[in-house]
Amino acid sequence: MNLILIESHELDAGGVAAVRGDRARHMRDVLKVVPSATVRVGVVDGPLGIGTVTAIDDEAVTLSCTLEADPPLVPTIDVLMALPRPKVLRRLWAQLAAIGVGRIILTNAEKVERDYFDAHVVREDTYRPLLIEGLQQARDTRLPVVSVHKRFKPLVEDELDAMCPSGVRVVAHPGVDRTVAEALRGREAERVLAAIGPEGGWNDFELNLLAARGFEPVGMGARPLRSDTATISLLSLVSAAIRSS
Amino acid sequence: MNLILIESHELDAGGVAAVRGDRARHMRDVLKVVPSATVRVGVVDGPLGIGTVTAIDDEAVTLSCTLEADPPLVPTIDVLMALPRPKVLRRLWAQLAAIGVGRIILTNAEKVERDYFDAHVVREDTYRPLLIEGLQQARDTRLPVVSVHKRFKPLVEDELDAMCPSGVRVVAHPGVDRTVAEALRGREAERVLAAIGPEGGWNDFELNLLAARGFEPVGMGARPLRSDTATISLLSLVSAAIRSS
Repeated sequence: MNLILIESHELDAGGVAAVRGDRARHMRDVLKVVPSATVRVGVVDGPLGIGTVTAIDDEAVTLSCTLEADPPLVPTIDVLMALPRPKVLRRLWAQLAAIGVGRIILTNAEKVERDYFDAHVVREDTYRPLLIEGLQQARDTRLPVVSVHKRFKPLVEDELDAMCPSGVRVVAHPGVDRTVAEALRGREAERVLAAIGPEGGWNDFELNLLAARGFEPVGMGARPLRSDTATISLLSLVSAAIRSS
Repeated sequence: MNLILIESHELDAGGVAAVRGDRARHMRDVLKVVPSATVRVGVVDGPLGIGTVTAIDDEAVTLSCTLEADPPLVPTIDVLMALPRPKVLRRLWAQLAAIGVGRIILTNAEKVERDYFDAHVVREDTYRPLLIEGLQQARDTRLPVVSVHKRFKPLVEDELDAMCPSGVRVVAHPGVDRTVAEALRGREAERVLAAIGPEGGWNDFELNLLAARGFEPVGMGARPLRSDTATISLLSLVSAAIRSS
């Protein structure tokens, strides 16, 4: 926990928050804060800042916060994923927030089992704390915007342009030689929407539909990766290409 | 499971193996094999090939294997890691084998808790099946060579050159501007030894010792990542740089 993230409703008009739960335990037991100690804080979807400890008890650590004027920028990468297995998705949420994405768009594909959509891990009350955990790891406040789309074709044909109106689009696909860096060359300042298929890959229909909507296929080597590993790899390559510009 | 990995002792002189456990269940229940069906097979640290199903019962699927002449090449990346938390390391084993590394060198650092070395997940009987799982995902047979070194200084000063005698060395460190791609430019055909620190980073002594032994610091952006995410990111960037050459 490299940042204590505070919900805006926890913060009073004077910038004071009584912080509870895991965050309080972390400050007490790991950071071993004492009154007048300072910690890095942030407000969910708001600014970063510094919190000064004013009181500590068994329930809460009270912080008086001095916040920056503006929130950090929203990450310039969005991700479109075929819904992974629940176990894999559970592992991914915090990592997606830590790597930094603006949107997480989850959708169907031929190789996605229909009952994955009913899993707890696709519900906001499950994934939101995991996203917060990732933001606290990465010192960011910008909660990724999550949406779940059970129908692939209407999403790609009708809804995606409104959600991600501009920028580069790439889709990871096995056996493609073109690299992420090549696909982004000269366009590193634009938003990137990176798509990643199910284990076993997109089928031809899905891939053609993505290509028709501007997704350029890119490859990540010959080894088939589990979808969490593949997602982290793809986003790392996109992030590195953006940073190198 | 994109490959059925067979231990050499399971294979008789005629190339026939009775395969049991998860692999048999996968062939029966997921691949739904019938007699005369073929599956991709490999021998641990040996060649890839094709297995033809000759018998199926509740216990085992019997495969008659035709193997290639030579095993696949050993991956040209090695990784040196400050021993992660047991929970994080457990998640990493299969992913390390899937991404493809020749050696996994685990060591101590100031920010590594000493009792991590006593964890089950550092024992071969725990990690070997996880590495096999990763190889079966990635269709490789080359089991990474794992070694655990409780003392950092003797490892880096006295032992590392024998284990990894040549090639490029990079160490991921927060706040460094030089990228992985820049560090490897023109040297993509050499072996790469990539080092990754504990959560919180290497201390100055550790970083200086690594630098003195030829490790060039590289950065991966401003966001502090959990060590499994950071490891996958680093290895993905190294792999991509090697492939781009």
